[in-house]
Amino acid sequence: MKEIIIKSSSHTYPIYIGESIRFQLNEVLKEDYSSILVVTDDHLEKLYLNSFLQSLNHNKVHHATIPAGESSKSIEQFYQLHSAAIEYGLDRSSLLIAFGGGVVGDLAGFVAATYMRGIDYIQVPTTILAHDSSVGGKVAINHENGKNLIGSFYPPKMVVYDIEMLDTLPLKEIRSGYAELIKEALLSDESFYDELLNTNLQFLRNEHLIEHLEKGITTKATIVEEDERELGNRKYLNLGHTFGHALEAELGYGNLTHGESVAIGLLFALTISEKEFDMDMKVKRFYQWLKMNDYPFPVEQLNINKLFSRMKVDKKTVSQSIQMVLLKDIGVPVMVELGNEKINEYLFLFLEQLRQRENWE
Amino acid sequence: MKEIIIKSSSHTYPIYIGESIRFQLNEVLKEDYSSILVVTDDHLEKLYLNSFLQSLNHNKVHHATIPAGESSKSIEQFYQLHSAAIEYGLDRSSLLIAFGGGVVGDLAGFVAATYMRGIDYIQVPTTILAHDSSVGGKVAINHENGKNLIGSFYPPKMVVYDIEMLDTLPLKEIRSGYAELIKEALLSDESFYDELLNTNLQFLRNEHLIEHLEKGITTKATIVEEDERELGNRKYLNLGHTFGHALEAELGYGNLTHGESVAIGLLFALTISEKEFDMDMKVKRFYQWLKMNDYPFPVEQLNINKLFSRMKVDKKTVSQSIQMVLLKDIGVPVMVELGNEKINEYLFLFLEQLRQRENWE
Ligand SMILES: NC(=O)c1ccc[n+]([C@@H]2O[C@H](COP(=O)([O-])OP(=O)(O)OC[C@H]3O[C@@H](n4cnc5c(N)ncnc54)[C@H](O)[C@@H]3O)[C@@H](O)[C@H]2O)c1
Ligand SMILES: NC(=O)c1ccc[n+]([C@@H]2O[C@H](COP(=O)([O-])OP(=O)(O)OC[C@H]3O[C@@H](n4cnc5c(N)ncnc54)[C@H](O)[C@@H]3O)[C@@H](O)[C@H]2O)c1
Ligand SMILES: [Zn+2]
Ligand SMILES: [Zn+2]
Repeated sequence: MKEIIIKSSSHTYPIYIGESIRFQLNEVLKEDYSSILVVTDDHLEKLYLNSFLQSLNHNKVHHATIPAGESSKSIEQFYQLHSAAIEYGLDRSSLLIAFGGGVVGDLAGFVAATYMRGIDYIQVPTTILAHDSSVGGKVAINHENGKNLIGSFYPPKMVVYDIEMLDTLPLKEIRSGYAELIKEALLSDESFYDELLNTNLQFLRNEHLIEHLEKGITTKATIVEEDERELGNRKYLNLGHTFGHALEAELGYGNLTHGESVAIGLLFALTISEKEFDMDMKVKRFYQWLKMNDYPFPVEQLNINKLFSRMKVDKKTVSQSIQMVLLKDIGVPVMVELGNEKINEYLFLFLEQLRQRENWE
Repeated sequence: MKEIIIKSSSHTYPIYIGESIRFQLNEVLKEDYSSILVVTDDHLEKLYLNSFLQSLNHNKVHHATIPAGESSKSIEQFYQLHSAAIEYGLDRSSLLIAFGGGVVGDLAGFVAATYMRGIDYIQVPTTILAHDSSVGGKVAINHENGKNLIGSFYPPKMVVYDIEMLDTLPLKEIRSGYAELIKEALLSDESFYDELLNTNLQFLRNEHLIEHLEKGITTKATIVEEDERELGNRKYLNLGHTFGHALEAELGYGNLTHGESVAIGLLFALTISEKEFDMDMKVKRFYQWLKMNDYPFPVEQLNINKLFSRMKVDKKTVSQSIQMVLLKDIGVPVMVELGNEKINEYLFLFLEQLRQRENWE
């Protein structure tokens, strides 16, 4: 079992990574909680909930299940979880456990942040992408007019990352999580990037998975510890996300996963970075890795004008230009403000390249 | 103009108290906010909104109005204010101003705490009771099954307390606010208590009002600075509230104001304190002060069994007993656990006394 210690502005907490370790959570529960509420989604309920509940050696364990999927990060589910917490008699010394992917983590974390003005919670991430969402303390729900607009900074007391549960993760979700790992590699060091580009997601071995998660989490943790509230360097974690979010919104949620969109966004950011800074970012190898692992490229459905205006409404933009994270080199991110015309030109070239694939294949 | 500095765990902020000072807010706005959203209720909108908006010398000032009254502290109004903030294009460097009583302060403060994971806000309290709600950083909305169950600790950046606006406050609301001032006097020192007992609320003079608010705020601030998250001494601020909340809930919101219920709760707590600790708490003088100022005593509508079970469901209780804040002496609060039988006995005696008034009048 690996242990990573994260410092937040309010407290320090451990992330444990290992196989089957969810059953050991009971042993590391330090506080004497008056009751426990486990929140999960309906996929995970079927797969893992019962045995997990039984492993919690406490006489007041309750559970609440939300429908799987992004649409559960809603004000209605938020309120319903509060109702459940009240109904089960949770008080200020109760514990909430978020048992699931990023959706459960973000929603249940926000409920914990606001139930009686904040109770303890623990993240038990069950997706690869949730290595990202369970570190850094951002919790939120969506507003009908925008993602993650209602939320808090509220770090968990502990993260118990049991990679055994990742065995049942659909390949699409593995791809989604690995895109964020690639992002973290690009923000940290070239050897990690190389290592990932040598990984075939269909034949992932547990010892490699653990190592990748550990490196990804350490990268994210280092950035977040320096800038919890995203006033400076934390913005670099948006690498690949300006285009990624535009794509995700444009093609509709549920079509491409978050990470699949970010993967294409990373390819875009790398392509621009190479041109702006005249450096080799191994774009071709990255593209081939994406193809080998069956990342979708829905090029036929993409429209420059629509993508462009989506990028403009992204909250990180200002008037006549768009701010983007680029790389001066692997491990060296910078914020760059690109004029509208330039962005349009890059978009045009990028989509052409995706259609023709001549430079990369 | 008076200035009180409050230390919270995240930052230090000033409370300004004075006449007509709302029009000076513009001068003390330090940050360069991208836009401003003023939240108020429909009573205050009619009375004070326009001139206040005009005094804000900023080219992006928006406003949103909620219906006056406790029922606006709801999940629906919470979501609607988020919608308004999005619609007006507020971003992370925008400012929210809560312009109103405790209802506006609690609701708008919670919106500020959660909009894009937290933006700055300023309290401009317009009721006497809001001297209490605008200090200490507690913000919240109600759940249909309980008051203030959904919320955060999120202190404002500044409080601008313009007592000029208190001129239009209905007497009922003045009584409500003064009950909390009496509570703060009881928690701090006898001379403040004496001073209040010599105050006729019908003929309140501004210099006295300012002085009382300043003392009340200082008392609250001192307690809250030591124990922001209510793990210890902050609980003392519940003096009078165990019975007060039971009364408020029993007679239905809108019948008695919060402070009017707390006033009777304080009388109950003092009566018990005198018996338990054999000290003189000037209960008779306090009762006469309440009568002089027309505090309501709806004794005929009170039922011991119902009040008792309301007190039991209050979140501060445990099984066979009820925890209450009592006074060993004026300025010396203690938490006491009273057995169910004893509480019932005290309740019986107290209601009898209220009905007969013989000991007090
Ligand atoms: N808070 C943050 O810092 C942060 C960072 C990144 C992403 N996020 C959020 O995370 C969310 C996406 O997270 P996600 O990708 O984990 O989505 P998710 O939670 O919806 O999980 C994806 C799907 O996989 C299923 N699943 C989860 N674990 C499984 C398992 N072990 N076996 C089989 N199926 C399993 C789920 O039921 C769901 O259908 C988004 O809402 C995003 O905004 C938050
Ligand atoms: N956050 C805290 O620490 C804290 C502490 C105490 C109370 N509270 C909360 O405060 C709320 C009660 O606050 P309140 O008593 O100020 O209620 P309120 O905000 O509802 O105001 C009372 C009434 O007075 C009107 N009003 C306000 N200012 C006026 C003015 N200057 N002139 C004329 N009318 C005016 C309002 O429109 C309303 O009808 C409750 O919800 C309570 O839970 C919070
Ligand atoms: Zn992401
Ligand atoms: Zn009160």
